[in-house]
Amino acid sequence: MSDLLLRNLRPMGGPACDLLIRGGTIAELAPGLDAPGVPVEDARGAIAWPGFIEAHTHLDKTVWGMDWYADRKGGPLQNLIDNERNDRNRIGLEVHRQSMRHALHLVASGTRIIRSHVDVDTDHGRSLFDGLQATRAALAGMIEIEIVAFPQSGLMVRPGTLDLMDTVLASGADIVGGLDPCAIDRDPKGQLDALFALAEKHGKPIDIHLHEPGEMGAFSMEMILERTRAHAMQGQVAISHAFCLGSLPESRAAALMADLAREGVAVMTTGSPSASVPALRALRAAGVRVGAGCDGIRDTWGPWGLPDMLHRAQILGMKNGFRTDAELEVLLDVIGPGGAGAIGRKGHGLDPGAPGDLVLLAGSCPAEALTLCAPRPLVVKGGAVVARNGAPLRDIP
Amino acid sequence: MSDLLLRNLRPMGGPACDLLIRGGTIAELAPGLDAPGVPVEDARGAIAWPGFIEAHTHLDKTVWGMDWYADRKGGPLQNLIDNERNDRNRIGLEVHRQSMRHALHLVASGTRIIRSHVDVDTDHGRSLFDGLQATRAALAGMIEIEIVAFPQSGLMVRPGTLDLMDTVLASGADIVGGLDPCAIDRDPKGQLDALFALAEKHGKPIDIHLHEPGEMGAFSMEMILERTRAHAMQGQVAISHAFCLGSLPESRAAALMADLAREGVAVMTTGSPSASVPALRALRAAGVRVGAGCDGIRDTWGPWGLPDMLHRAQILGMKNGFRTDAELEVLLDVIGPGGAGAIGRKGHGLDPGAPGDLVLLAGSCPAEALTLCAPRPLVVKGGAVVARNGAPLRDIP
Repeated sequence: MSDLLLRNLRPMGGPACDLLIRGGTIAELAPGLDAPGVPVEDARGAIAWPGFIEAHTHLDKTVWGMDWYADRKGGPLQNLIDNERNDRNRIGLEVHRQSMRHALHLVASGTRIIRSHVDVDTDHGRSLFDGLQATRAALAGMIEIEIVAFPQSGLMVRPGTLDLMDTVLASGADIVGGLDPCAIDRDPKGQLDALFALAEKHGKPIDIHLHEPGEMGAFSMEMILERTRAHAMQGQVAISHAFCLGSLPESRAAALMADLAREGVAVMTTGSPSASVPALRALRAAGVRVGAGCDGIRDTWGPWGLPDMLHRAQILGMKNGFRTDAELEVLLDVIGPGGAGAIGRKGHGLDPGAPGDLVLLAGSCPAEALTLCAPRPLVVKGGAVVARNGAPLRDIP
Repeated sequence: MSDLLLRNLRPMGGPACDLLIRGGTIAELAPGLDAPGVPVEDARGAIAWPGFIEAHTHLDKTVWGMDWYADRKGGPLQNLIDNERNDRNRIGLEVHRQSMRHALHLVASGTRIIRSHVDVDTDHGRSLFDGLQATRAALAGMIEIEIVAFPQSGLMVRPGTLDLMDTVLASGADIVGGLDPCAIDRDPKGQLDALFALAEKHGKPIDIHLHEPGEMGAFSMEMILERTRAHAMQGQVAISHAFCLGSLPESRAAALMADLAREGVAVMTTGSPSASVPALRALRAAGVRVGAGCDGIRDTWGPWGLPDMLHRAQILGMKNGFRTDAELEVLLDVIGPGGAGAIGRKGHGLDPGAPGDLVLLAGSCPAEALTLCAPRPLVVKGGAVVARNGAPLRDIP
């Protein structure tokens, strides 16, 4: 944890001042600060934003920088899952190397925290988790990585997966993952009871992928809400995607959103362009904590995406029909302080006492910075400069 | 029109060869060509694609490079239209300068032809058209610009607009534009009769924006189809957006697509992320000619978009849930030969006799080139190099 004096920045796009970080924590903001012996960076009037929150991605999946992957398959979901599980070894998708590439690009684009799911399945055992843990260790000090143990191929339909989940959670995974209790696991009660029991045993939060559309998704969501209440896990549960909220009648979706808000269940959205996604305006108006994520980036599932939360905020904005400056500022909140709240972090801002984690943005105001999506002039983590002019200060393997 | 020998390129991603352009036209493709006295460019094994077709944009609208436009409004459509018309002069949106910026970025990203709508309304008279015509003249030899006379603020609801349309079409506009005969003009019969009469008088094709959803849009589409038949304008009519095809029941949309194919009515899609758009797979399967466009780029309507057809193809691909290499090649056809067909151009390919208009792409195969969306190494128009390494060979004002 370092000391750093940043001169002439505009916190959250406000008036220019200096910002002093001491021991990795923001100590003071004021014009004309002086701190003898402390390294100085000149922000040249750039906007400063708290480091971005990547609240939903898969660091174990990208083929970034590998030979072109020509063997992508069409849907449905089960095809994509099986194809990936079967192809990982054949194409040499080495998780430590690939997750280093992915995470270092996220460093360069100004990310403070990544919540990454990692596949736990009986074909690969804990090896993908181990690869990601190595990346977490290698990048400590540059970026924080939360690991979700994720039974991508199903929990109930693939015996042995539950034991692996237990092992991985005992070995450092932070969060209990899951997906589609009906559509993939064909046993919503069995799966959700098992996941909540795991969470209780390990004292860890939950984050469940819910791709299920319409009333099937609503049913699964209700079952998650019931267990959140029964296990007194309010504030500790998240639902990723929650596509059903985008395809249900508005009044039905609104009632579910009210329940999510009441039980403190967060929603992680990716703004998936091809899916019906929850309306960001409605989620926020209902009081649901919302985070955003880039999801998989150039992986065996699809060729799209960039490891950059500003780029994802653009996708989310286009999807939600956002146009005004106020709406663009909502997006910057979702990938900033709002997203931090969604993953359960408090005090994520540019105030004294907050972590010395920030990113400088090019643009005259926050809305323009989001539109320009230009390379980030400087990224700071715990008072240390970790990226400059869009490149991380460490070689990408 | 120039001569040029391109060495070591891969036409459409196929085997490497040389390509000779003589007098602006492709003369020969073969390995080891020799052409004494002809300028040579080394393509270093890059993929070559026919120059992209930007089939739907608005060169008269962008605020690119101007001060941040903070006054965007929310919908509905009428708000966005009125706000733009009222704000153009206040913010100094000078159409010649702005369309030069927009068009030169399209040159740099490898575009051969732009079909641009230009607003014709009683507040601005023909001035926006004149600004765009100046740009067309200034960039002759670098890019082709088709101008659609577009009554953005309505034809029937704003008396005087029809006369202006007539004037502009007599002064060099290439295509009769229109929009939303029901929702905006409140007189579908009146508007469409007037537009088809204009087209007949000037002997020019038609391209109508259709944002209307569901059965209202289907009704307007039927009226356009009826008039296409009655005026024997098969192959001369296009519908831009055609959002209704994305919100109707599949069987109803399929019947309309069959009618569009039968009457040779093309569809120009933008893959609008926030709207229900026609399914690209279904349109192509029905035999509808499809072009794609970036629509407005960073204008008073919204802050999104880039003047780059590869970027638009990505948006279109994400929206349509495309993943496989074959699907990515469909996208490259829609912005290439397929798009040329949609705007009524034949012989748009890399064959002898075709225009010497091409773009080099970085990537091992066309699908990877689309994914990477890297700066274009070289853009050639009529045998002349017009852009290199992502920058046009002319200053951007």
